Amino acid sequence: MASQQFEPPSGTRDFLAGDLRRRERVFAAARTVFERYGFEPLQTPAFERLETLTGKYGDEGDKLIFKILKRGAHEASGEADMALRYDLTVPLARVVAAHGSRLPTPYKRYAIGPVWRADRPGRGRFREFTQCDVDVVGSSSPLVEAEVVCAGADALDAMGVEDFTILVNSRRALTGLMQVYGVPADRAAGALITLDKLDKQRPEAVVAELVDGRGLEQSVAQELVRDVTVEDAVDRMRAALKDNAEGRDGLAEVDRLLELAGPHVGEERIRFAPNLVRGLDYYTGSIWEVVAPGMPGSIASGGRYDHLIETLGGPDVTACGFSIGVERIIGALGDEDQGTDRIDVAVTVMNEDYATDALGFVQGLRRAGHRAEIFLGTSRKLGKQLKWAADRQARYALLQGDDEHAEGTVTIRDMESGNQERVSATDVFTAIDSKFTM
Amino acid sequence: MASQQFEPPSGTRDFLAGDLRRRERVFAAARTVFERYGFEPLQTPAFERLETLTGKYGDEGDKLIFKILKRGAHEASGEADMALRYDLTVPLARVVAAHGSRLPTPYKRYAIGPVWRADRPGRGRFREFTQCDVDVVGSSSPLVEAEVVCAGADALDAMGVEDFTILVNSRRALTGLMQVYGVPADRAAGALITLDKLDKQRPEAVVAELVDGRGLEQSVAQELVRDVTVEDAVDRMRAALKDNAEGRDGLAEVDRLLELAGPHVGEERIRFAPNLVRGLDYYTGSIWEVVAPGMPGSIASGGRYDHLIETLGGPDVTACGFSIGVERIIGALGDEDQGTDRIDVAVTVMNEDYATDALGFVQGLRRAGHRAEIFLGTSRKLGKQLKWAADRQARYALLQGDDEHAEGTVTIRDMESGNQERVSATDVFTAIDSKFTM
Repeated sequence: MASQQFEPPSGTRDFLAGDLRRRERVFAAARTVFERYGFEPLQTPAFERLETLTGKYGDEGDKLIFKILKRGAHEASGEADMALRYDLTVPLARVVAAHGSRLPTPYKRYAIGPVWRADRPGRGRFREFTQCDVDVVGSSSPLVEAEVVCAGADALDAMGVEDFTILVNSRRALTGLMQVYGVPADRAAGALITLDKLDKQRPEAVVAELVDGRGLEQSVAQELVRDVTVEDAVDRMRAALKDNAEGRDGLAEVDRLLELAGPHVGEERIRFAPNLVRGLDYYTGSIWEVVAPGMPGSIASGGRYDHLIETLGGPDVTACGFSIGVERIIGALGDEDQGTDRIDVAVTVMNEDYATDALGFVQGLRRAGHRAEIFLGTSRKLGKQLKWAADRQARYALLQGDDEHAEGTVTIRDMESGNQERVSATDVFTAIDSKFTM
Repeated sequence: MASQQFEPPSGTRDFLAGDLRRRERVFAAARTVFERYGFEPLQTPAFERLETLTGKYGDEGDKLIFKILKRGAHEASGEADMALRYDLTVPLARVVAAHGSRLPTPYKRYAIGPVWRADRPGRGRFREFTQCDVDVVGSSSPLVEAEVVCAGADALDAMGVEDFTILVNSRRALTGLMQVYGVPADRAAGALITLDKLDKQRPEAVVAELVDGRGLEQSVAQELVRDVTVEDAVDRMRAALKDNAEGRDGLAEVDRLLELAGPHVGEERIRFAPNLVRGLDYYTGSIWEVVAPGMPGSIASGGRYDHLIETLGGPDVTACGFSIGVERIIGALGDEDQGTDRIDVAVTVMNEDYATDALGFVQGLRRAGHRAEIFLGTSRKLGKQLKWAADRQARYALLQGDDEHAEGTVTIRDMESGNQERVSATDVFTAIDSKFTM
């Protein structure tokens, strides 16, 4: 086999201890916050029936679904009957349909797990990656938005994202704006998708696409772009929507969310952003996105999506959710070692005949809750075993050579200072304990 | 859609909060033990290249592999290029080949994660299920067997399996036995596979298969079966192997393992079992299986398999492992509720205008580490909200009606006793805290 064939498949990763622990710390931080909020964990299978997934992600999305071949006699057909899950939202919709009566009302669930997309792998883009979602299904109270935004913000804090801003807008305010400018309803969704490109493209390019691609008049396109990008955009938008019912409701939604969540996430960390559009046309109410200095794009996003669950095959229930880009965050947090890979005590085996004693030491230390290892190599040389202890980043090493064995003692070596002390074999557990409780 | 279509795919499961928490507790118990032993976690992708998996599990196994269709222009070919992992051992072999130099020597790894097999779903048999493995790669020290057996036994203890027995034998002792009886080397592996059926079939049936299927002489087959099943089988086997070098080495392996691990797992929980065969022919040294009253079949098994990693595409390194049947254990442990689903405090919202206060209460409680929820429904009726608090199994409910709001107080209701007390709104956190620290 060529050596490349030992690498994990393109776009996937092997997580060795250090990476895995770093990821687990981030997930555990989020989990702790969500549990405190009373969100319930949900885990669905890695694959779903093919028909559960197809047609739910648009043409481009459908192409990225990993499909599973039929088995046995049907394998030769070359047809698929299952597919790896593409996100955590379609499985949520299915679960709400399947288990509705067993679920609390509203159903507050969180899910942290892998999804699979046959995307072209690239820097920070994977074919297997973890999503982290909280959603509330079945309540239209404005407290839901506050709940979800507070949970998401607390989770970001707990993950170690120190500095972030939550940008809030309302799908209804944007719809109102379209109405005010006389954009026909059937072109409004498309125009919003184009407007969403303002964070990546120059205003003139967006105006051009609104005119050429979306059929808006030049002057309308220019006004629209100006309304959401200029410095006094907030005031302009309020003024523009003064006489539009849909738009006023949208602004009220935003105001209520800022009023409720602001004191808890920090007033300086959440604000109305008229230029936030979010291209996904399933949002029906408030929408938000979280940006953080030093992290490209947005690190989290969400909003109210009252009819999506039904569109995805579930019942018609209201819903609101927040999705945290954990892969992006883990990538940006860097890999400062928190020392959890270290071994407390490395127990050497200086002589075959002392193996029983050595095993007694290591088992006793483990039972006392220490992270302890016994030398499993065949060499009986001290230097080799001390090198092993150093490689394992052990804080202490236990040595029992002929002298120690004869007198019933053990040498405890501080691996950092090199200091050694000899203690009675019966006192070794107390001696080690005292070093870790100091 | 028919309602069945909302169910998860055949052989897979949705884990709602209660089930998921119960599973997580079992996994976490094992993880804690493995970490204490210095085993390192490893997580590999859900899918591997198809060629990494095919040909590794025999013809029957190959048929059970879930294959993933090629994508894009190649989808029409009906061919697969990837497959869902079938176990955690082949990925381990690939990781050892790919990351060898970055791994500690020996490499002690644990892995707890889902695998997929297109088996016919049935009682306790799933198409997506979790495996839990510890393995040591790269050491031939007999301490490795002791290490792995002690870790597995401690993990079973931690998972709550109270009563179990570890049955130990040696592949080499069994090979020696074949030699003593003059079974040709090329028939020995097959004969051992047949002998392994003794735990499910009557001795006469096994004798018949040894004669008809494996080509052994009637007298040899009878002697063999008797050697491993009679009450004094241990003595008979020792006597039979007295003059056979391979067999003596095998018995010495078993004796050393019992001697080393016995004091730590408990002498009464581990014993030599000449009738333990284990049909898998990749074992090269000690083998073991764990049985527990009330749990069908074996709940864990393992042994030394010194050349398997090479056979699976990795380098030729020694290895020894222990696999715990976590699904079987979770199934047998039952679902005693440990109360972790309960909410500490349910905060009601008696009036739209008091929502800000209510949110302040719930956020303060969460920040203090309590599991607290706020009522997200639209009803403002006390009865409805108290029913919600009861459904969420809340220990306490916070009520703030008009009276309380006017006087700046909150009512704390003990949901079990129904007792209520009114405290100043500023004292509510201290009051709740004191109830949970009492």
